[in-house]
Amino acid sequence: MKDSRGIKVRFGITIISAIATFFAASLCATVLFAAGPDEELMSKAKSLFGPLPASMPSPDNPITPEKVKLGQLLFWEPRISVDGTVSCVKCHPLGLYATDGLRKALGNRCKENPRNDPTIFNAASQISEHWIGNRTSVEDQAKQALVGPPAYGMPNYESVEKILKGMQGYVTMFKQAFPGEKDPVTADNFAKAVGAFERTLMTPSAFDDFMKGNAAALTDQQKRGLKTFMSAGCATCHFSPYLGGQIYQKFGLFEPYEKYTKSQPVDEGRFAVTKNPPDKYVFKVPILRNVAETPPYFHDGSVDKLEDAVVIMAKIQIGKDLTKEEMGEIVAFLKSLTGTIPEVALKVPILPSVD
Amino acid sequence: MKDSRGIKVRFGITIISAIATFFAASLCATVLFAAGPDEELMSKAKSLFGPLPASMPSPDNPITPEKVKLGQLLFWEPRISVDGTVSCVKCHPLGLYATDGLRKALGNRCKENPRNDPTIFNAASQISEHWIGNRTSVEDQAKQALVGPPAYGMPNYESVEKILKGMQGYVTMFKQAFPGEKDPVTADNFAKAVGAFERTLMTPSAFDDFMKGNAAALTDQQKRGLKTFMSAGCATCHFSPYLGGQIYQKFGLFEPYEKYTKSQPVDEGRFAVTKNPPDKYVFKVPILRNVAETPPYFHDGSVDKLEDAVVIMAKIQIGKDLTKEEMGEIVAFLKSLTGTIPEVALKVPILPSVD
Repeated sequence: MKDSRGIKVRFGITIISAIATFFAASLCATVLFAAGPDEELMSKAKSLFGPLPASMPSPDNPITPEKVKLGQLLFWEPRISVDGTVSCVKCHPLGLYATDGLRKALGNRCKENPRNDPTIFNAASQISEHWIGNRTSVEDQAKQALVGPPAYGMPNYESVEKILKGMQGYVTMFKQAFPGEKDPVTADNFAKAVGAFERTLMTPSAFDDFMKGNAAALTDQQKRGLKTFMSAGCATCHFSPYLGGQIYQKFGLFEPYEKYTKSQPVDEGRFAVTKNPPDKYVFKVPILRNVAETPPYFHDGSVDKLEDAVVIMAKIQIGKDLTKEEMGEIVAFLKSLTGTIPEVALKVPILPSVD
Repeated sequence: MKDSRGIKVRFGITIISAIATFFAASLCATVLFAAGPDEELMSKAKSLFGPLPASMPSPDNPITPEKVKLGQLLFWEPRISVDGTVSCVKCHPLGLYATDGLRKALGNRCKENPRNDPTIFNAASQISEHWIGNRTSVEDQAKQALVGPPAYGMPNYESVEKILKGMQGYVTMFKQAFPGEKDPVTADNFAKAVGAFERTLMTPSAFDDFMKGNAAALTDQQKRGLKTFMSAGCATCHFSPYLGGQIYQKFGLFEPYEKYTKSQPVDEGRFAVTKNPPDKYVFKVPILRNVAETPPYFHDGSVDKLEDAVVIMAKIQIGKDLTKEEMGEIVAFLKSLTGTIPEVALKVPILPSVD
């Protein structure tokens, strides 16, 4: 009896359990069906990347309209470079998504810069600037460019300040942008103004519409690409709402990068900054927003096509050979990161006259 | 009797004549007073320069919105140059009144061009392009620049066409701009599109308001400058609504120009085009619109300041030593030629992607 009762009881429990399981499973299926694959993908993407914030943080350089306006003019100003040809816009043409399309940027007197120039769109969101993180912020980058030998090439900051002070239009604008300062026309304030301008340059895209719940913002191919991008491990480094810019990583985890990029010479990356051997071949993970519009690729611009760049990245960073279909899907997804260029970036400012 | 009568008659006639003369003179004075010195100046300026037309003529290249739009994009396009750095806008930055501020423009691989680059604003109004008139039109200039060794430096037109055909965005726009053409992506059509864009770039200024009857559009100093400009003989060469661009003239009629400009080397000007000895040191008279915003001056950019340029011009072209006051007045007048840059020139176009 005990046993049979026990058996019966156990049997009864099993039945109840089975029924419960059935209902639970049905419920789950219903919930899943209600959420749908799009919602699941959105939910996963949201947790991996997080939503694009309304603005990029700027704790040390409060954004004001006066600073942004001045920064916009200075961004276009070539007369403060040693040969009169270099301005921010020279290497960051705004109609080309703020990159110059060259393997390596050319500064004053056509001097080649050490690396490919990244877009300045969304750049202020990163942990640091430049491929090897040798600039702490967009402001630091802007300031150091003035005296950078392959950049503006000016002998010192005073010479820049002197030129700016020779244009009343700028003197007035610096005063307005930095009220209360006795001598506002400084290289530091140049950097703050340019930085403030750059900090406004975000480029929301179809991907953000998708993340906000508009399933139709991505094509099916793009959705498959996003899924693969996350599942294959791309997002391990390319995370954050900007899909990158937050960590350093060795380029060539599985195989030396130069085997595929044919890079000549081989760049040791962040090692040049830290002199720390583990930083050999380490670069800042670039943000992927607008990546489809900013060829050529990698720190030395050694690869022309996004398709090839995606295949190489999978091969040497996650040790995976992508199928042609997967590559196509990831490329399609990356195109959903091509964003809307803000209006202020598409206006040519009229620059002040020399007094 | 006869005599006395005769005397009386003559006397009477003289009296009547004197009275008539008095009234006539009074009437004239009244008319002059009514017209006033402003109106007199306007009238003289109108007859010398003529009113600015509503648009620049374009008999061989009909202007269409599609052509202008394509031309605007091509104006900004560097990817059709041999080193990927040269576009029209490189030497004609629009926020600097379409000049680069350099003594001589730098083309691909920093190659120096033979002469200072003039603004492209209003340039289509001229009898020819370039300082020595070796380009027949803005279209001819645009086309030849593509293969000009110090300009875009491309090996041939086919190579440009091939690059443009590799961007679907351009292929579509060429089709729209040149409907009915079987193979519209050509260097000739590049030239027509860029030319069409440039032909829209007029810059009406305070001077035109004055010419239309608004006496307050010029300051008293500017009016005195205009008066001197006309009476001293500047307008002998700088005529037309564009104040120049219509004839060739020897630079250094009274003394060799290099004595004052310190030009090195001495440029023989249009002689290089015609091989005709009287064309030695002959250049196209430049238009003076926006001259205050387009330093440095002369064909070789040898003079930095407008004040100095004005003094030198008076000295060597009309043999006149201007007083400091006259120079200041003429410079003030020239500033009234700084015009409004058309909106289309202050927009950065987003360029097509490479397929």
